[in-house]
Amino acid sequence: MPGNSSGYLFRLTTFGESHGHATGGVIDGCPAGLSIDYDFIQRELNRRKPLYHGSTERQEADSAEFLSGIQNGVTMGTPIGFLVRNTEIRKSDYDNIANLYRPSHADLTYTMKYGNTPVGGGRASGRETVARVIAGAIAKLLLKSAGIEIHAFVSQVGNVVADSDLAGADLSFALQSPYGCPDTKMEQQVASLISEAELNGDTLGGAVTCRITGTPPGHGEPVFDKLQADLAKAMLSIGTAKAFEYGLGFQSASMKGSDYNDQLIVKEGKIRFLTNHDGGIQGGISNGEDILFRVGFKPVPSVKKPQSTANRQGETEMISITGRHDTCHVPRLVVIVESMAALVLADHLLRNQSARLENLR
Amino acid sequence: MPGNSSGYLFRLTTFGESHGHATGGVIDGCPAGLSIDYDFIQRELNRRKPLYHGSTERQEADSAEFLSGIQNGVTMGTPIGFLVRNTEIRKSDYDNIANLYRPSHADLTYTMKYGNTPVGGGRASGRETVARVIAGAIAKLLLKSAGIEIHAFVSQVGNVVADSDLAGADLSFALQSPYGCPDTKMEQQVASLISEAELNGDTLGGAVTCRITGTPPGHGEPVFDKLQADLAKAMLSIGTAKAFEYGLGFQSASMKGSDYNDQLIVKEGKIRFLTNHDGGIQGGISNGEDILFRVGFKPVPSVKKPQSTANRQGETEMISITGRHDTCHVPRLVVIVESMAALVLADHLLRNQSARLENLR
Amino acid sequence: MPGNSSGYLFRLTTFGESHGHATGGVIDGCPAGLSIDYDFIQRELNRRKPLYHGSTERQEADSAEFLSGIQNGVTMGTPIGFLVRNTEIRKSDYDNIANLYRPSHADLTYTMKYGNTPVGGGRASGRETVARVIAGAIAKLLLKSAGIEIHAFVSQVGNVVADSDLAGADLSFALQSPYGCPDTKMEQQVASLISEAELNGDTLGGAVTCRITGTPPGHGEPVFDKLQADLAKAMLSIGTAKAFEYGLGFQSASMKGSDYNDQLIVKEGKIRFLTNHDGGIQGGISNGEDILFRVGFKPVPSVKKPQSTANRQGETEMISITGRHDTCHVPRLVVIVESMAALVLADHLLRNQSARLENLR
Amino acid sequence: MPGNSSGYLFRLTTFGESHGHATGGVIDGCPAGLSIDYDFIQRELNRRKPLYHGSTERQEADSAEFLSGIQNGVTMGTPIGFLVRNTEIRKSDYDNIANLYRPSHADLTYTMKYGNTPVGGGRASGRETVARVIAGAIAKLLLKSAGIEIHAFVSQVGNVVADSDLAGADLSFALQSPYGCPDTKMEQQVASLISEAELNGDTLGGAVTCRITGTPPGHGEPVFDKLQADLAKAMLSIGTAKAFEYGLGFQSASMKGSDYNDQLIVKEGKIRFLTNHDGGIQGGISNGEDILFRVGFKPVPSVKKPQSTANRQGETEMISITGRHDTCHVPRLVVIVESMAALVLADHLLRNQSARLENLR
Repeated sequence: MPGNSSGYLFRLTTFGESHGHATGGVIDGCPAGLSIDYDFIQRELNRRKPLYHGSTERQEADSAEFLSGIQNGVTMGTPIGFLVRNTEIRKSDYDNIANLYRPSHADLTYTMKYGNTPVGGGRASGRETVARVIAGAIAKLLLKSAGIEIHAFVSQVGNVVADSDLAGADLSFALQSPYGCPDTKMEQQVASLISEAELNGDTLGGAVTCRITGTPPGHGEPVFDKLQADLAKAMLSIGTAKAFEYGLGFQSASMKGSDYNDQLIVKEGKIRFLTNHDGGIQGGISNGEDILFRVGFKPVPSVKKPQSTANRQGETEMISITGRHDTCHVPRLVVIVESMAALVLADHLLRNQSARLENLR
Repeated sequence: MPGNSSGYLFRLTTFGESHGHATGGVIDGCPAGLSIDYDFIQRELNRRKPLYHGSTERQEADSAEFLSGIQNGVTMGTPIGFLVRNTEIRKSDYDNIANLYRPSHADLTYTMKYGNTPVGGGRASGRETVARVIAGAIAKLLLKSAGIEIHAFVSQVGNVVADSDLAGADLSFALQSPYGCPDTKMEQQVASLISEAELNGDTLGGAVTCRITGTPPGHGEPVFDKLQADLAKAMLSIGTAKAFEYGLGFQSASMKGSDYNDQLIVKEGKIRFLTNHDGGIQGGISNGEDILFRVGFKPVPSVKKPQSTANRQGETEMISITGRHDTCHVPRLVVIVESMAALVLADHLLRNQSARLENLR
Repeated sequence: MPGNSSGYLFRLTTFGESHGHATGGVIDGCPAGLSIDYDFIQRELNRRKPLYHGSTERQEADSAEFLSGIQNGVTMGTPIGFLVRNTEIRKSDYDNIANLYRPSHADLTYTMKYGNTPVGGGRASGRETVARVIAGAIAKLLLKSAGIEIHAFVSQVGNVVADSDLAGADLSFALQSPYGCPDTKMEQQVASLISEAELNGDTLGGAVTCRITGTPPGHGEPVFDKLQADLAKAMLSIGTAKAFEYGLGFQSASMKGSDYNDQLIVKEGKIRFLTNHDGGIQGGISNGEDILFRVGFKPVPSVKKPQSTANRQGETEMISITGRHDTCHVPRLVVIVESMAALVLADHLLRNQSARLENLR
Repeated sequence: MPGNSSGYLFRLTTFGESHGHATGGVIDGCPAGLSIDYDFIQRELNRRKPLYHGSTERQEADSAEFLSGIQNGVTMGTPIGFLVRNTEIRKSDYDNIANLYRPSHADLTYTMKYGNTPVGGGRASGRETVARVIAGAIAKLLLKSAGIEIHAFVSQVGNVVADSDLAGADLSFALQSPYGCPDTKMEQQVASLISEAELNGDTLGGAVTCRITGTPPGHGEPVFDKLQADLAKAMLSIGTAKAFEYGLGFQSASMKGSDYNDQLIVKEGKIRFLTNHDGGIQGGISNGEDILFRVGFKPVPSVKKPQSTANRQGETEMISITGRHDTCHVPRLVVIVESMAALVLADHLLRNQSARLENLR
């Protein structure tokens, strides 16, 4: 029944319901000697905030409190416990709909599984991702020390799709964009699309594309813990994620082998890939190229438009979900996607330490 | 470093290289009292065979040998060890290319990780899936006793896409189809597409769609071991898999919340879903509807057409891969997809046993 | 590298250093629907306190703060996060010896492993056991609902050994005894032994005996996760524990099979054991009899008597450890032993749910 | 429910019942590049054989068949599958007692847990240890490459106790001794004790002491996976094991801290321990000294002397167990103890690779 841990050697366990006292976690397995950049962690948390028009109005002043594992700003090799208090809880937002199962939410399934539904979605709320971002930030610091960097951007909102292809997207622009978009044009299209949806009491989904640079060859554990398998699991563990593809993904299904294959060439004594259709992973193991993947998200399920649903007495009823909910949550998901990718990559960095006898200490 | 196990309570560990002595595995956690239908297991193994024109010509007479865990045809609760001998190994097929890294294969990454490349791909060969099918067949028997059934079909080969949508596909036809297709029309299109590709010394990819019926509500463990997360990992662990989506998948990214949400209605005292866009899973937990997902596969990387590659001396060289290789492997992947789904579902059937205090024995 | 989790289905992960901000943990896998008796948890925490002369003078007002997983006093099936603030930290106690490796402590080994030593022992301090007691109390509540109860007592301090044999010890007396002893006579002997040792600036070890009643037959998972194997691991994970035996333990080594074996007899249609030399476990599985085991602990390593040691500059130096340290910690270990046993038993209660097909829900 | 795996990074999963087709296992996580000495593995298997008067007469010609993971005598980093056929099965030995629960065996508990009892004990038979020895031998080869060696000996049979203390025992003599004893005197006493017991239709238990040399400081993972905790679990997972102690073990319970503590002294710039009462482990982490522990075993439960028991119809009946059973199994357990210790040490060797950032590759 435990399902709240992620990772084998860099292992995160999280806890906390949307409307409980706190959300937090424990990282077990972070090596000793890593300097913790608290400002960076805060900046990552800020990226999760609803900064822009169209996102939830709940302005959570999230700030991580670290309880253990760090001494004088450096990890000790012991577990890193941390938490964020849930300060601004408005249970009243849910009072009028507490008796209803919100469509395409987890209210019904949690009740069927556990016999209860926590107020406000509990663990099925986006609130749960706070712990992922904090742990992901520490994973990023670990990865950075090994030269690995992770950058994602919003590649789709509704029917607005980024021009930029996977490889060429301007990720530094996206990092500053309130909508996480790779260029001004898309930013503007997304802004007006969200305004329109909000006006209609409706919501939007989209996609996030991620690029990981600097991964040395050899990371990933065949056959069940292939690097892409762990990435897929991590991404699909994010609420509202519906799809994952890496490299050319579904597009590859309609290609010929001779067009698809990443052919090799030797230049100046080094093996080079002519293309990167495989997205940096072959046989479940990183090949040194950029790791590229894309995640698709369904629209936010909390819509103001009236919908048919069931109440807890087993009767049909109409529901209209008001309160602080994102019209489009995809821009906020950029840092979540990066964080989950970081957890997977950090895990495989450590897992690869004992691949060969000659490398053992 | 261990990466060859799948599942938490219904746990499969596999071993075996393509050109080694045997391929096999151990299932640890299968409940006692399950009757083993050996004929069914053999039929499942037969579905993995290359039955049709266009697939590999290596006719493996695969037959599982069970070594433990079963007494008088019934499981004992002890681990089920099994193996399949690799009888028909033609190392000569690989002699002329042993010095070359095959493009978009795992030869290079295995060498970079482990310092060696097993002949014929080792664990990165499709041969490895034999153990998945045997274990998957036993998982299916366990699931059947709980009313859960799993059926997949070929929904795409190259640019030929099935007409049938997810929900309506004729899966009994597909089960008999040598191409795993849901109707005669697609079967014929696929046949001619494969013939053409073979003639050109090229290969094809495609997609497999899977429908799981009868899953009771409540299966799946939030937040990291969500049912779709474990399915995604299982599917992406299959060689050549590049993409996974469940329910409406990537399509949902461009939808409005009001169109997407699975609204509820109460009929004759029972809560019903008006649609199944979520694909039977909400908040990571099954909701009782059919579970629907799709997996995209890249084309077979072994192409006869000459391609640029590197040899082990670090020089550019041309490669043409002949020998027994599938022109299109997607029809053979149907039973692999089902098997991996069965392993995940069996695992979560057992994991759900201790969700509530009132249900403990 | 993660090593801070215990249990497979009832899974505790802990964090916190002796002189850090807080000590706490996460329980993942506790079934939904369990009523939490907060008073009981506090009483268990109180048993960990130094109540008597001869124990550490640090009077920690430990009180658990629960952060998640519980709604209206009942578990929700989501992870239970909790912590205890480290309020009364006296780093000054360690100032004068910060430069020295305390003999038979973990200062030296932590430094050799991680490159640092946390002040006051960090995770190697008895402080770490707070989280075990809180989680153990919840495990006890779960077990109680299944009829399983756990009681331990001090069966040895220095050369004072309890008269009472394993089966007959008066555990209700021990529960009230400040020294955890099963009778007044032993209590008095222990009191004077501790006084004497304290006077000499010396310390004492001892043993704790534990009896578990009400375990149904069938708990324990052969072959590596035998019930006694998990109990042994849990006990040896307690700081200063040096030995574990169950049933007749080491004594059985000198017995004849005909004397040792637990013979069976049928009375009124029920199979009865004539003896319980096996301590309630056979083949790694509980047999329905009382589970009996004993744990041996070395003396507290912090002694006032001057001892030879090394400083961090690599020179021999004398050390005398003053400050708040127990002269004998064994009475405080009673609740720790019970807590760890409860974690193991709760885990195996859940693990046994899927042993047989006929019992699946 | 899975309980047939041991280790986190060097991970063994075993299968096979006493009277099934084969016994075997899979090692997942052995680094690539390890040379496999097949002769050594065979010699280890031979040490498990009943070489001497008084042990079982079943002369199993055990020989490991390796199925995967090794190419040209060197590990590839892929899982190592192996098996031993159960050639000489005499089910007839059990025919006359098939209806009876053998006292202090696992017949009754397996039946209560799983609803069945495998013939001849199934997984509860000593036969199961074959896989441990094979995997343990490979673990020893890995450890040897890191300078770690493991040697055990019989330190007690019945009331005959070895003179030699832990530190001084002549382990090279024991390796050759048919009784695994450290000197001729004990060998003779044990021989006559076993003869006598056999004559009486009775059986004997004993103890095995183990010394591990060359473990670098730093191995072991606090707090739950302390090195001694994993050793204790490994030892108690061996059938008939009843007790475990390391260093001074239970003896330490009656010592004063000032006598017990391993004081330090600096000689020629190196920190030395004046004693090794802690048995080479402090705070759960190896300190560089020899690791010393002792395991106590109950007598063989299969006795010829008539005993009271129950039959499967629920009636009292007398039982006399004849056939091929050891009078004393302790000499055969020496290699089992070493093998399990090797599995634990190999696991922790790998787990320690990522303890510090500065050591990551």
